[in-house]
Amino acid sequence: MSKYKIAHSMIRVKDIDQSLDFYKKAFGFHETRRKEKPDQKFDLVFLSDPDETIELELTYNYDHEPYDLGNGYGHLALAVDDLEKSWSEHKDQGFNVTELSGLDNGKKNYYFITDPDGYKIEIVRNK
Amino acid sequence: MSKYKIAHSMIRVKDIDQSLDFYKKAFGFHETRRKEKPDQKFDLVFLSDPDETIELELTYNYDHEPYDLGNGYGHLALAVDDLEKSWSEHKDQGFNVTELSGLDNGKKNYYFITDPDGYKIEIVRNK
Repeated sequence: MSKYKIAHSMIRVKDIDQSLDFYKKAFGFHETRRKEKPDQKFDLVFLSDPDETIELELTYNYDHEPYDLGNGYGHLALAVDDLEKSWSEHKDQGFNVTELSGLDNGKKNYYFITDPDGYKIEIVRNK
Repeated sequence: MSKYKIAHSMIRVKDIDQSLDFYKKAFGFHETRRKEKPDQKFDLVFLSDPDETIELELTYNYDHEPYDLGNGYGHLALAVDDLEKSWSEHKDQGFNVTELSGLDNGKKNYYFITDPDGYKIEIVRNK
């Protein structure tokens, strides 16, 4: 069998500038590469976390209506060392965050933040 | 700003055994951890690629109807060294695969394979 390595996860976004702004300001993601196809009316923008674990591919179809997120796809999860600090920072930044939830070794261990298209991002405590 | 690391991507699946069988046989993924919550009628099964780049979390809600995949979420992409060999292997295994597509340095550079719930997995050539 061939050997496979997870490379990226792709979501479609309605407003590329708003999404880039969100992923940069909320999580410090940076742009790794971009393919602009104005003749086909779409751009692909690849982002990543500081360690470049995998890429998040944003597909931007020009002038598209809001996407139907369905109920199949769940979320991308990001791990952080200090979950309480992260939660406070996101709340202070005015992002749409849930309360801290779950329980692991007596501590709450996750919350969710919503991106401009409504995709959920789970923030979990780094192990 | 806190430092974030991409940790996992979650999808909901209708038949956990069928999904596990697919991700193991098609890509050599292995189970990393599992949380079974029979009282809440759901199980979470985490899989990963051999390098454990990130995890793929499968949420299995017991006796759920097929999920509506919407048109927002795109796909998870996996990189492989020999794309043509991978395509032939997947075709020989009887999986639902598209033709090789795209073009990069004179070579086709991706195809898609569909999982049991209809989620697309993109196979790309490793850079």
